[in-house]
Amino acid sequence: MFSNERHQKIEWGDCDPADIVFYPRYFAFFDASTGALFEAMGYSLKHIRDELGDVGWPMLNTGSTFFKPSKYGDNVIIKSEFTTVGRASFGIRHQLFNDGDLAVECLEKRVWACLNASGTLTSKVIPNEIRARMLSQD
Amino acid sequence: MFSNERHQKIEWGDCDPADIVFYPRYFAFFDASTGALFEAMGYSLKHIRDELGDVGWPMLNTGSTFFKPSKYGDNVIIKSEFTTVGRASFGIRHQLFNDGDLAVECLEKRVWACLNASGTLTSKVIPNEIRARMLSQD
Amino acid sequence: MFSNERHQKIEWGDCDPADIVFYPRYFAFFDASTGALFEAMGYSLKHIRDELGDVGWPMLNTGSTFFKPSKYGDNVIIKSEFTTVGRASFGIRHQLFNDGDLAVECLEKRVWACLNASGTLTSKVIPNEIRARMLSQD
Amino acid sequence: MFSNERHQKIEWGDCDPADIVFYPRYFAFFDASTGALFEAMGYSLKHIRDELGDVGWPMLNTGSTFFKPSKYGDNVIIKSEFTTVGRASFGIRHQLFNDGDLAVECLEKRVWACLNASGTLTSKVIPNEIRARMLSQD
Repeated sequence: MFSNERHQKIEWGDCDPADIVFYPRYFAFFDASTGALFEAMGYSLKHIRDELGDVGWPMLNTGSTFFKPSKYGDNVIIKSEFTTVGRASFGIRHQLFNDGDLAVECLEKRVWACLNASGTLTSKVIPNEIRARMLSQD
Repeated sequence: MFSNERHQKIEWGDCDPADIVFYPRYFAFFDASTGALFEAMGYSLKHIRDELGDVGWPMLNTGSTFFKPSKYGDNVIIKSEFTTVGRASFGIRHQLFNDGDLAVECLEKRVWACLNASGTLTSKVIPNEIRARMLSQD
Repeated sequence: MFSNERHQKIEWGDCDPADIVFYPRYFAFFDASTGALFEAMGYSLKHIRDELGDVGWPMLNTGSTFFKPSKYGDNVIIKSEFTTVGRASFGIRHQLFNDGDLAVECLEKRVWACLNASGTLTSKVIPNEIRARMLSQD
Repeated sequence: MFSNERHQKIEWGDCDPADIVFYPRYFAFFDASTGALFEAMGYSLKHIRDELGDVGWPMLNTGSTFFKPSKYGDNVIIKSEFTTVGRASFGIRHQLFNDGDLAVECLEKRVWACLNASGTLTSKVIPNEIRARMLSQD
């Protein structure tokens, strides 16, 4: 499956009084990583919204396991990869590495979405061209 | 001018490793206070968007002075009041009190905005009925 | 097991360009709900840090399922309940209701933590008095 | 005075339902830029906390003027420069450029801070070596 990695710097404002990353911030990092994963395939969310007229990929469910805290000033690497590609939904795994150690692992299941005639979010079959890229190695 | 006040609880995730509120969070609190100020007049941003078709009130400039830090678990009071009401723009002052002391003071200048035909944000004269309320005492 | 509920207003800044809550914000809401759950038992995180000298309850893993989007201006209710209470760890379930419908469900597993002599986060047996409250109905 | 610049990518989660950056996020960007400015001089906040035992540089006041909105997917440049260096306080100006245009300008006044014997935040004379760097061109 297609994969990507990116760097993330841990900022002061990402951390809480225990001096470690406030965990909801990891989900914001992973959301940005999903955006970067599509962008690396050539399909930014901007493209999907402006060119295809679709809304994006709302989350169905996501969960993270936290193995090791990260701190202000750390530079971490997030590796992201598609794990499943269905008709209208797909899975992604993010692995956040800090100094070589797996620090956080996150799984996501998202759905391809557009707005229907009445302006409501609804799922839609993933465009063929994009599905083909998701299933490719690079 | 019309004024309002609301309570805000300082959460763990609002604070940074120095154990005090991460200051960008105050701006999020004040943005919510501006929303609450309009809501107290009977014009929620939801109403303005859905009923009037306007976008809201983007910020022209805002600044805060920080007199005293607040900490996790504090319950603060935010008093908000219109300071100026122009044709298409207006000013607001927020004062955040912690345990009776003025802890943060913020000034905002915002513009009434709609989308023009080409989908660009543009300023617009404040609706008369709403301006009248902004200028009223209650 | 002990349970609690609280109200949460969805603010403008909680929402993204798809006009729905940016999902990492739900995790911040649930973190605040866990704080409120302990506070409702009489043990605020402030008390646990200042009186007991413990750090709090870092997350081991958490996951959410999203059934229905929430929007700016919605007033939602979050019901929180302990699901398991172990020696040094515990589970919580949060259910977010919007207009009567279950909109998001979240499970958490957290560990009771203190700092050891070398200043590293480490797990610790949950104080007996607090465990008894966690296991109680009210 | 010493200056620095860095790139910032506008993420989906930085934007609000009007499809533009939620302005409190700019203050988080500028806070990271102040951190990067010190880091570029060789004095990260990590260094200041761990090596010098000081707390950092809490904000006295800050204000921003917004000339042009930025959107999801934009890559912006933030130029930061010291404007004043006093005994225990200093000023910084951040300028955020989007596609060549000045989009946001921010002024900050911060104080050098440590914890006194009773654990309260208090101001302190800026270390000479660091002041010299702040006043230098590079």
